Amino acid sequence: MKALAIDLGGTKLAVAVFSHDGHIVERAVYPLELRSGAAVGVMITAAVQQMQPHGFDAIGVAVPGISRRQTGTVWAPNIPGWDDYPLLAELRAVAGDIPIHIEGDRSCYIMGEAWQGRAQGCTNAIYLAVGTGIGAGILADGRLLHGAADISGAIGWMALQRPFHHEYVSCGCFESMASGEGIAKAARALIAKDDGYKGMLQHGHLQAKDVFAAYATNDRVAVAVIHQSIELWGMAAANLVSLFNPEKIIFGGGVFGPAAQFIPAITAEAARWAQPVSMGQVKIEAAALQSDAGLYGAAYLAFHA
Amino acid sequence: MKALAIDLGGTKLAVAVFSHDGHIVERAVYPLELRSGAAVGVMITAAVQQMQPHGFDAIGVAVPGISRRQTGTVWAPNIPGWDDYPLLAELRAVAGDIPIHIEGDRSCYIMGEAWQGRAQGCTNAIYLAVGTGIGAGILADGRLLHGAADISGAIGWMALQRPFHHEYVSCGCFESMASGEGIAKAARALIAKDDGYKGMLQHGHLQAKDVFAAYATNDRVAVAVIHQSIELWGMAAANLVSLFNPEKIIFGGGVFGPAAQFIPAITAEAARWAQPVSMGQVKIEAAALQSDAGLYGAAYLAFHA
Repeated sequence: MKALAIDLGGTKLAVAVFSHDGHIVERAVYPLELRSGAAVGVMITAAVQQMQPHGFDAIGVAVPGISRRQTGTVWAPNIPGWDDYPLLAELRAVAGDIPIHIEGDRSCYIMGEAWQGRAQGCTNAIYLAVGTGIGAGILADGRLLHGAADISGAIGWMALQRPFHHEYVSCGCFESMASGEGIAKAARALIAKDDGYKGMLQHGHLQAKDVFAAYATNDRVAVAVIHQSIELWGMAAANLVSLFNPEKIIFGGGVFGPAAQFIPAITAEAARWAQPVSMGQVKIEAAALQSDAGLYGAAYLAFHA
Repeated sequence: MKALAIDLGGTKLAVAVFSHDGHIVERAVYPLELRSGAAVGVMITAAVQQMQPHGFDAIGVAVPGISRRQTGTVWAPNIPGWDDYPLLAELRAVAGDIPIHIEGDRSCYIMGEAWQGRAQGCTNAIYLAVGTGIGAGILADGRLLHGAADISGAIGWMALQRPFHHEYVSCGCFESMASGEGIAKAARALIAKDDGYKGMLQHGHLQAKDVFAAYATNDRVAVAVIHQSIELWGMAAANLVSLFNPEKIIFGGGVFGPAAQFIPAITAEAARWAQPVSMGQVKIEAAALQSDAGLYGAAYLAFHA
């Protein structure tokens, strides 16, 4: 048995044919190149057809947003025209009656790690995806958590610092401070207040990766921003530990990569806040599958759809 | 079909025989009177035998702590000698082979409200129990959330205010500020700093109910403490909304009663912090079943054990 995994991102489409034991038989990547709406759908169905000669019995799809399971439609905020896109119907039109499972990307990340990565053997595990934004994929008591309308895991909105600040309005308290965007914004704010600063972060298009690079040189702005991020990541992990009593919390996502070095510090911070018995039962780790986590999770869900 | 519901609290034991449609056929309450260890077990099995003439086909038990489902044992921190108490074996000895379900009290509260209270028809609903401490019972995608070792829902440990403060060590950030104990402590701390205060809270054994009473007279200490509690309850509710995407959040517990008047203010505070789409799908309400929530939940779990 083989499965076709599809990982739709904000800038590219990745597809791969998986064997049942988790090996990638064939893969391809296509840049979206500013496509929107139905043009993205055409790209996906064309990719499915291109992979059909390799043979597969099920399809799993990771989408950058919400999969509305009742309607088979997708909300993807970074793809124009994908407010309620009929992806399931379009896939059915080219793939016929094989099982098709569409899931939000953060849920695919945790299932990928549970299948082939750091959360193998876990029935309670959470993937905290730190990218441009922040979200969580939650495996609880052996099942993906969905919620009333499939929008569970919106952990970027977690309240971690009172009182309320107007910056939290657009993307939430945690995300506004500790996402890729939040890290860059925090660094810019510190530089603006620091008249004597002459460090390497004094340029126009500051990104989180620049802050990680500057941290390695002991840059004072970067050190302050990273310490704040570690505190916030630790608090968020603690809150997941106390609420879910998981076996693993996996940190990953497009921005987090260089922050794997901070896992011990994040764990120490979490241990200050979390329910102590649950804290003793969890391991906090960096993701194993990197940018393939979505593909692996989509493949797993296809095999179990 | 009838069920025997048992609600073990820190100070009393309540038992009731329920009909399948949710009516209480017979009930009794026994004060624990400082019993501990096996004496509490004897009291429970005696109560079961006393109710046997009324006939029941299943037993549900709410315990003030953690039900370890794998071993059938109970951890109840406020009952001396109940670190790992073999309650299931003792119940089996008197009740024989009928279904027996033992569950933590906060999980019983949400199942009680889902069966006969404010969360009827919900598949995603959370009971936030504000008593001496704070805990949450979580119904997610139609199932009670348990976690790796049955200690999910320890929301009293939720991190809501950085930096870390030594007061959080013993019971967690949220609980240290917004539980019954936390409210009394916050009032005492404000009075100690307020030289000119001559209000009604100037006495030795201040409790949360005194703060609620003083709030009604516009007492300045009580107003400040209640406003802080509303902010923290709202933030915690918001975090549950963002993570779980529930249909209902129910506030209840032994201390919360008089705070039902603050539900609109708590909802407004939650709406500032929570993921906005999820916030639009949730209702925040006060509990309907009051002190019987544990009995109702235990009965429901007995019928479905």
